[in-house]
Amino acid sequence: MRENFEKNLEELKRKIAEMGELSIIALERAFKALKTQDVEIALKAIEGDTAIDNLEKEINQFAIWIMAKEAPVSRDLREIIGVLRISSEIERVADFAVNIAKSTITIGKTNSLLEMTHLEKMKEVSIEMLRKALQSFLEENIALAKEVGDLEDEVDQYSGETYKKLTTYLSEHPEETNQLVQLLFVNRYLERTADHITNIAESAAYLIKGQIYDFNS
Amino acid sequence: MRENFEKNLEELKRKIAEMGELSIIALERAFKALKTQDVEIALKAIEGDTAIDNLEKEINQFAIWIMAKEAPVSRDLREIIGVLRISSEIERVADFAVNIAKSTITIGKTNSLLEMTHLEKMKEVSIEMLRKALQSFLEENIALAKEVGDLEDEVDQYSGETYKKLTTYLSEHPEETNQLVQLLFVNRYLERTADHITNIAESAAYLIKGQIYDFNS
Repeated sequence: MRENFEKNLEELKRKIAEMGELSIIALERAFKALKTQDVEIALKAIEGDTAIDNLEKEINQFAIWIMAKEAPVSRDLREIIGVLRISSEIERVADFAVNIAKSTITIGKTNSLLEMTHLEKMKEVSIEMLRKALQSFLEENIALAKEVGDLEDEVDQYSGETYKKLTTYLSEHPEETNQLVQLLFVNRYLERTADHITNIAESAAYLIKGQIYDFNS
Repeated sequence: MRENFEKNLEELKRKIAEMGELSIIALERAFKALKTQDVEIALKAIEGDTAIDNLEKEINQFAIWIMAKEAPVSRDLREIIGVLRISSEIERVADFAVNIAKSTITIGKTNSLLEMTHLEKMKEVSIEMLRKALQSFLEENIALAKEVGDLEDEVDQYSGETYKKLTTYLSEHPEETNQLVQLLFVNRYLERTADHITNIAESAAYLIKGQIYDFNS
């Protein structure tokens, strides 16, 4: 019984790791589409989301099956609930990748203003955060979870600066409204991406230490 | 044992109903703040979110406790999982109310341009959707769940029209950039609010019929 539970939990964790990898690919792909203004790549990023959604459903069903079959308690139950929470957060991160891809399509082929923002840096820090948050969960490493909180502050600062730059530029260049509004949305999506990755780190920390953390404040 | 489970499930549903009511209050309050440009009301809407977050945590812990204690299977387990999903969706709806309140604070006291949008109508339809979605879940009424899907199409249409109006106006009135960008965000928040309420209806439908629905497409 115990051995079974451990084996099933490992399988769940393997699926979480896979979902994480797919989300990183989605973020990279969506951002590449934004940077190169490539609608084909944007569409690929959007299509790829189905695999991530399906994986989340698989994880949900598998977790429910384990709960029904083995009725885990205390720490084991916390692990399963942690898996459910983390898979739902990863799914939300992947949704933001889809949103970035959709913004790319709305922007179209006009002269890109991406260079005046910190968006690429935010994307890079977010991916670093996601890697650390997942590793923190999979290897039960509390130090990594804390690092995620620090990196989130960095993303927030970039986001504030980007917001100011874009709105200032917008008031001087009304002809660029369409693109600038979409870049403001992307800025918001990446800020929210970092929030949700921080939630993953908090879930990992809760699991490791058995107490609730708030790295967002 | 059975009686206990039913009693606990009723208690969980009561908490879901309470969370729903608090979220409706939050949406109404945040929108009132936006409409009257009242920072005090906006702050109240933001503060109120703690109660909703706490209620979600209570629901989570209670649900986990029930699962650990009674190891529910099949439909019972689906109900508990449904409660967990729905409470997380309501929490997200309440987060959007907080976001609207924050936008209100960022807009400040400049001459309001709210009247040129469909935002108020979107807020009203969203609240109608939330009432129907919750009732659908609490009373196991599939017809209500389907109505939610139709109302979401309405919100999407309003949202598209509002986006066009605001961006057109923005390109002609760069001096209003700050407010218009925030109204574009609020438009997005309300569109997303409707999406998440539709997810609640889908969870309700899944519970009632035991099969997956997609009212979003």
